[in-house]
Amino acid sequence: MEKWQKSLKTDTPEEGFELAINLAQEGVKRVQPNEKIREKLRPKYSKNADSITFASQVIAIHFQTVAAANNYWTSKVNYIR
Amino acid sequence: MEKWQKSLKTDTPEEGFELAINLAQEGVKRVQPNEKIREKLRPKYSKNADSITFASQVIAIHFQTVAAANNYWTSKVNYIR
Amino acid sequence: MEKWQKSLKTDTPEEGFELAINLAQEGVKRVQPNEKIREKLRPKYSKNADSITFASQVIAIHFQTVAAANNYWTSKVNYIR
Amino acid sequence: MEKWQKSLKTDTPEEGFELAINLAQEGVKRVQPNEKIREKLRPKYSKNADSITFASQVIAIHFQTVAAANNYWTSKVNYIR
Amino acid sequence: MEKWQKSLKTDTPEEGFELAINLAQEGVKRVQPNEKIREKLRPKYSKNADSITFASQVIAIHFQTVAAANNYWTSKVNYIR
Amino acid sequence: MEKWQKSLKTDTPEEGFELAINLAQEGVKRVQPNEKIREKLRPKYSKNADSITFASQVIAIHFQTVAAANNYWTSKVNYIR
Repeated sequence: MEKWQKSLKTDTPEEGFELAINLAQEGVKRVQPNEKIREKLRPKYSKNADSITFASQVIAIHFQTVAAANNYWTSKVNYIR
Repeated sequence: MEKWQKSLKTDTPEEGFELAINLAQEGVKRVQPNEKIREKLRPKYSKNADSITFASQVIAIHFQTVAAANNYWTSKVNYIR
Repeated sequence: MEKWQKSLKTDTPEEGFELAINLAQEGVKRVQPNEKIREKLRPKYSKNADSITFASQVIAIHFQTVAAANNYWTSKVNYIR
Repeated sequence: MEKWQKSLKTDTPEEGFELAINLAQEGVKRVQPNEKIREKLRPKYSKNADSITFASQVIAIHFQTVAAANNYWTSKVNYIR
Repeated sequence: MEKWQKSLKTDTPEEGFELAINLAQEGVKRVQPNEKIREKLRPKYSKNADSITFASQVIAIHFQTVAAANNYWTSKVNYIR
Repeated sequence: MEKWQKSLKTDTPEEGFELAINLAQEGVKRVQPNEKIREKLRPKYSKNADSITFASQVIAIHFQTVAAANNYWTSKVNYIR
């Protein structure tokens, strides 16, 4: 079982970014569960600039979620918002 | 009746991710209610990298909603935000 | 007059999802007000996987709005956020 | 001067949706200020399903902003969030 | 130095929309720093409806950020949220 | 180690925009870790208007996250929200 399945908490933004990548990968796995097909697709799409941007966009969306879950890793007190 | 129809609450991020997938599937069903057509489309789009990324993006958007609904499954008290 | 025009409140996530679909449809109607043209386009796009995903994405975006408007249909007290 | 330029407040979700459409149109005008070119493009894109969905997606994004600006038109007290 | 580089605050939604456009332009400049290339691309993409919609979508995303930064230009007290 | 890996805090929106660019680049690196391939793709996609818009969109999404993490660089007290 992967860690994120129990909690979205991470210690740092860096780990949060890893988690966002994991979530993006999980989404892909659920849409196409067959690993062989996924591996077959990878060489081509990972050499297409827009496909790369698209994949990085999904990471960005998940990073928003993870960052919010971690209160943006803020230690500084934000009195107001 | 599916569980999410009454509540977006889940016990863990993992279950929340399942719910996000359900919501994404529900959206697809509403746009194309004919199951046969959906099944016919699946083999092709699930072998297209961008189509897979696109579907995983919709899951990511729903996961944002589900995560917010579950207060990001946080047990740690966030004093301020 | 449709219900959402006065309030985004719904009793359940299920009804909120319906509202999100209504909002998505409303957007489409405003971009292309001619019903005949819309109906003409439907058979084709509803058999294109990416077009379906795209339409379901817009529903997902509206569902975010509706869910927030309904405080995510939460009954559980969230002391802090 | 259009109303939104001073305030994003509207009385109802319906009016908020109108404002979202205005904002979407404003964005288009700023990207392509030439009205004649915009008018020339309209007949074609408004008969393309994906183009319509795309335009309705931008409306959905703006509607998120407008809805938040109006506290989701909520009269019901939300004690907690 | 542009104003937004120090603060996202603006007096009105109208100015906020301008700022959103500036941010969108800044992103484009950072991806393609060569002004000549950007200018060369402009005539073509600004006559393509989907390209225009796409650019206006990025403005919409930045407008969400700017609106939140300005507390949606609200003067009305929102007791609860 | 890059600064963002420990904190998303920046002093100004300008620095926050830089961070958003870094995050976008990080996502791209994770999808396509091979620097040579990335460099090879760059000349082409950076001369395609839609590819540029797409990359700037991912920056916009990350900027939302960074802005929220920095409480929108607000010094003005917002009593309520």
